[in-house]
Amino acid sequence: MSILIVGTVAFDAIETPFGKTEKIVGGAATYISLSSSFFSQDLNLVSVVGEDFPSSAITMLKNKNVNIKGLQIKEGEKTFFWSGKYHENMNQRDTIETQLNVLENFDPIVPEEFQENEILMLGNLMPSVQKRVLDQMKKRPKMVVLDTMNFWMDNFLGDLKKALKEVDVLTINDEEAKQLSEEESLIKAANKILNMGPKQLIIKKGEHGALLFAKEGKEKKIFFAPALPLERVLDPTGAGDSFAGGLVGYLDKTKDYSFENMKKAVVYGSVLASFSVEEFGTKKLEEITENQISCRLKNIIKLVDSGM
Amino acid sequence: MSILIVGTVAFDAIETPFGKTEKIVGGAATYISLSSSFFSQDLNLVSVVGEDFPSSAITMLKNKNVNIKGLQIKEGEKTFFWSGKYHENMNQRDTIETQLNVLENFDPIVPEEFQENEILMLGNLMPSVQKRVLDQMKKRPKMVVLDTMNFWMDNFLGDLKKALKEVDVLTINDEEAKQLSEEESLIKAANKILNMGPKQLIIKKGEHGALLFAKEGKEKKIFFAPALPLERVLDPTGAGDSFAGGLVGYLDKTKDYSFENMKKAVVYGSVLASFSVEEFGTKKLEEITENQISCRLKNIIKLVDSGM
Repeated sequence: MSILIVGTVAFDAIETPFGKTEKIVGGAATYISLSSSFFSQDLNLVSVVGEDFPSSAITMLKNKNVNIKGLQIKEGEKTFFWSGKYHENMNQRDTIETQLNVLENFDPIVPEEFQENEILMLGNLMPSVQKRVLDQMKKRPKMVVLDTMNFWMDNFLGDLKKALKEVDVLTINDEEAKQLSEEESLIKAANKILNMGPKQLIIKKGEHGALLFAKEGKEKKIFFAPALPLERVLDPTGAGDSFAGGLVGYLDKTKDYSFENMKKAVVYGSVLASFSVEEFGTKKLEEITENQISCRLKNIIKLVDSGM
Repeated sequence: MSILIVGTVAFDAIETPFGKTEKIVGGAATYISLSSSFFSQDLNLVSVVGEDFPSSAITMLKNKNVNIKGLQIKEGEKTFFWSGKYHENMNQRDTIETQLNVLENFDPIVPEEFQENEILMLGNLMPSVQKRVLDQMKKRPKMVVLDTMNFWMDNFLGDLKKALKEVDVLTINDEEAKQLSEEESLIKAANKILNMGPKQLIIKKGEHGALLFAKEGKEKKIFFAPALPLERVLDPTGAGDSFAGGLVGYLDKTKDYSFENMKKAVVYGSVLASFSVEEFGTKKLEEITENQISCRLKNIIKLVDSGM
């Protein structure tokens, strides 16, 4: 009944074919926290920001029941900043600028009261930092979910592979799955990655949905959750993190880590991601209601119901 | 209880990252015929080949219960030939060579005994030729399905739009849907295209599945069938045609053109397409059994069953 969320809390500046933002609040841990707040009441954050980070954003997280005791605020330093521009089809983006700032020397400290949290959500961060968080847990969490990206595969593959040995669920996108496994077929990729440590693998395909893979003994299991086709996608930033937030939030609420329940968690992840992309930044996640979530859940279930 | 299939019967030479073929038998109508033969016993072909077309391929079609009375064999002429090369990820291909040959002056003639067929499947061809077939039908078929591609949108958009006014179902891929509608969102694209004539629209997304859209009065309906993730994809050529064949075959078998039944037909289309890509050319479609089809159907249904 508790989730420890580790990841960036940051500033983003985003340009898509539909608009452009100034510096706005973003970061993996922010999206994860907001999304999981719809399901879980015991959310605990470990992250770092600079003194330029707005207190209003911290208040917003607090109002969503996020315990920010593990959020380091570094005086005299600046918050991590990323700016990027999405291509016409929104499937690709170019990084325009990355200022690591406080992230450069980030030493995550897990407050004692978080060290027995049941779920550990390791948002996208340097693999060695993710590992350092896991090592501080007094009790091995019941469920460790790790999100990562191609940058770490390019530059810190050894560390990433070490971290993978200790996680239950890995979430990556399709291109990253191909890169990590050196396989073009996602089925083959999944088989290889499931031999690297994770018991379950989620391959996120953006607007094309998400695949869940698991190996239970000799049995291989697979599930697919579609993404809801949307009329308006303004900003894909944070979609994967919103997905992860919905996923761990639902798992925390239900306390059932079986494959059957993971399928449902993946669908909830898709629901949260579908909202996230409809506005720039975290705006939509801050606005939606539980009612909207259950309505959209029904639509996703209906979308693939063939009646057979 | 009868399908008239119009489209190319052709030679293809295909190169993919997994191999390369000499001239092999292909063509939209060939894939459609083979796929629909698993469901329908009354298949009637209208197409054209040259004298170089192997009689063994014609026998193969006959053995699948395809009535080839409408297949023109042009003496002294050569069969339509296409060669292409797929990129590493198989999602894109380059045309290396196109020899129109017999297609250049193809004047489709629908034998009288086919003119009251219940389903008309207009495979990818010049839109004016598709229209000429429709005009020869003595009775308006109960269901007219039209497949087309970007080439006709680029060069014969007027003719295509004329043809669209008279069809029940249009099948195109996602890029083509965006091109035809000038919309990036598939939801918006579908709304526009459904105003061009078709009552239902199927947007094929290759390995990412297929979307079915319909407008019934003011109500908008949507359904999504996933593609089965495959370990081995050798050759995507003909996947869309195999999909169309499974679709119309199932519709002919069930004689139910409601949205509810179309959903099932789309799933069967996905099943047939999933087999088609596992070997070069039509090889797999010639080999599979009804048992394999129903087994794969179960896998696709299970793939998206969240238990919710």
